[in-house]
Amino acid sequence: MFGDLSTPALLVDVEVFLANVDRGAARAQTLGVDLRPHAKTVKSPELLQHVMDRGAVGLTASTLGEIRALKSIASDLMYAVPVAAGKEGALLDAVGDDDIRVTVVVDELANLAGIPDDARIDVAIEVDSDGHRGGIAPDAPGLLELAERVAARHVLRGVMTHAGGSYLVERDEVPSVASAEREAVRTASRRLRTAGHAVEVVSVGSTPTMAAVDHLDGVTEARPGVFLFGDLSMVALGACTHADLALSTLATVIGSTQQGEVSLIDAGWSALSQDPGVAALGGETGIGVVVAAGAELADSHLVVSHANQEHGFVRARSGGPTRLRTGSRVRVLPNHACATAEMHQEMILVSGEAVVGRVDRPRGW
Amino acid sequence: MFGDLSTPALLVDVEVFLANVDRGAARAQTLGVDLRPHAKTVKSPELLQHVMDRGAVGLTASTLGEIRALKSIASDLMYAVPVAAGKEGALLDAVGDDDIRVTVVVDELANLAGIPDDARIDVAIEVDSDGHRGGIAPDAPGLLELAERVAARHVLRGVMTHAGGSYLVERDEVPSVASAEREAVRTASRRLRTAGHAVEVVSVGSTPTMAAVDHLDGVTEARPGVFLFGDLSMVALGACTHADLALSTLATVIGSTQQGEVSLIDAGWSALSQDPGVAALGGETGIGVVVAAGAELADSHLVVSHANQEHGFVRARSGGPTRLRTGSRVRVLPNHACATAEMHQEMILVSGEAVVGRVDRPRGW
Repeated sequence: MFGDLSTPALLVDVEVFLANVDRGAARAQTLGVDLRPHAKTVKSPELLQHVMDRGAVGLTASTLGEIRALKSIASDLMYAVPVAAGKEGALLDAVGDDDIRVTVVVDELANLAGIPDDARIDVAIEVDSDGHRGGIAPDAPGLLELAERVAARHVLRGVMTHAGGSYLVERDEVPSVASAEREAVRTASRRLRTAGHAVEVVSVGSTPTMAAVDHLDGVTEARPGVFLFGDLSMVALGACTHADLALSTLATVIGSTQQGEVSLIDAGWSALSQDPGVAALGGETGIGVVVAAGAELADSHLVVSHANQEHGFVRARSGGPTRLRTGSRVRVLPNHACATAEMHQEMILVSGEAVVGRVDRPRGW
Repeated sequence: MFGDLSTPALLVDVEVFLANVDRGAARAQTLGVDLRPHAKTVKSPELLQHVMDRGAVGLTASTLGEIRALKSIASDLMYAVPVAAGKEGALLDAVGDDDIRVTVVVDELANLAGIPDDARIDVAIEVDSDGHRGGIAPDAPGLLELAERVAARHVLRGVMTHAGGSYLVERDEVPSVASAEREAVRTASRRLRTAGHAVEVVSVGSTPTMAAVDHLDGVTEARPGVFLFGDLSMVALGACTHADLALSTLATVIGSTQQGEVSLIDAGWSALSQDPGVAALGGETGIGVVVAAGAELADSHLVVSHANQEHGFVRARSGGPTRLRTGSRVRVLPNHACATAEMHQEMILVSGEAVVGRVDRPRGW
């Protein structure tokens, strides 16, 4: 399997990826919202170009490194981590001389000190929809003062939220998390409009909530990211199926214990990450599910139960021998595509069993 | 605190690092063994040069990328992950035309297919000392056949083991793990010598066992790695003290919840890793201990309780407010220095509150 590739290697199945791009675009159209995918999962400008080609209005970034890498393909970026004093210079350096628009997010007055005075920098207010990340409560008295203070010096572009809670619940609870996410930004945008503010952008974002929500009336855009690659967590939450998993780590079997109940692969946490995935996975996938050469995922009874830096330990879920031959190759499906991808600087594009390209995955901040 | 640095940033306190280099060298001298530090923690050739200057016989590597990066400063490298068929070409590419010696490790006959026929590639047999990684049991009947087969085509340089079990036990159990590690390679080397093999290298390796072992008679070298940076896990296992922690992640506070019981920093798992540390830490440090500007570690009551990709969530261990001001800076001490360092491409060298240099940390395989 991919005999010419040195392992470990991060594989992206291009056809599956492109199908995910299409499905996301179609879902946004059905919901009547713009798509501003989060770039932190994929990062590669070459791959994200496909998302832009399919009509995304822009991209979401969570590091200045992403802004530097993506400004050549998208002119409307949201920097979705609250700014703080001390980063305004670095933000302007990242923007450079380019004719782009960056929307930064704030959730308290103290953030204002971190917003550069630059006509290309707009501001959105982060609203808390579930108590699991930052954001100001949509009914907080301070929301209107924050909006006033922002609008006095910058373009107040709108409101945004992220339903981090969708990663913590069981599958059947995702729809109610999705409704809460939508209602949080609707409430906040209503209050801001009543106070006389134009609210161009009303933004929600997470792959599970976008898959589960019944409607997004009153919302203008969604910012899912992980849907582009898919992962075992998204399967567990009902946001995709195993057939939609575009990302895997290719590894070589480097040995087995004498009884054969543990096999070692040359992909440790430096290639797989240590992410246990969402609560809904229940820890049943270890740090990834192993698919042997020629096997279908449906057959797979193997997981990476734990890992050292450069060793992964494969076990059968039911106990018993792994039946993996030393020197053979396996693919490991990620619990969390963002975390696995973050361990790699390069992605190998594959189509079936053929390598069709390589792209860099720019890291760092 | 380090106001000119963009956050998150990985800091190395140079004086603490150099003191760790010295202490490791002195400890090896006391034990009467050579030092072949594992490079996977530090990776930077500039920093590891100090280890070579202090008399290390060579370095240990766990990726071909490390071999490429380190062959300019060390001519005797051990590649401490079993080789497998398919990597021999990549290994020779990594060695290039350089006049170096690389010792690869094997633990079963199937590994032999992965050893290049090249005069610069020697072989050590990996011995299992605790059932927690690879290796052949020191008393296994197959050991002598494996040695014969290796010696028929290559230079059999010796035996090695890694006491991975030292990361799984409580502090007071480390000495017995260390004895078992030593006895495993002594047993294997005795058997090989009795069978007529020269055994030049008898190698053990882990920071906790090297700190705890009572003697290393019959052992020729040790391969600890994390002692160079230190971390909270090594403190918990008694291998170093808080004063020996050279590595930390600088982060900026980007907000707090309204009650102040959670503060957000701009270092998530993409900067900190998700490593929970050794069992002996008992999960009490979250994914890292937070030291505010001007605070001593002894005062620190704050931990990163969990993280998203670019957000870290800081809580007081006892509950109550974090008292962190938005825009202020903190340092996060790592549970596991190897895992935190692996998330970064650059390390900032500091002395007290001054930046004194920057070095790359080459990643990838």
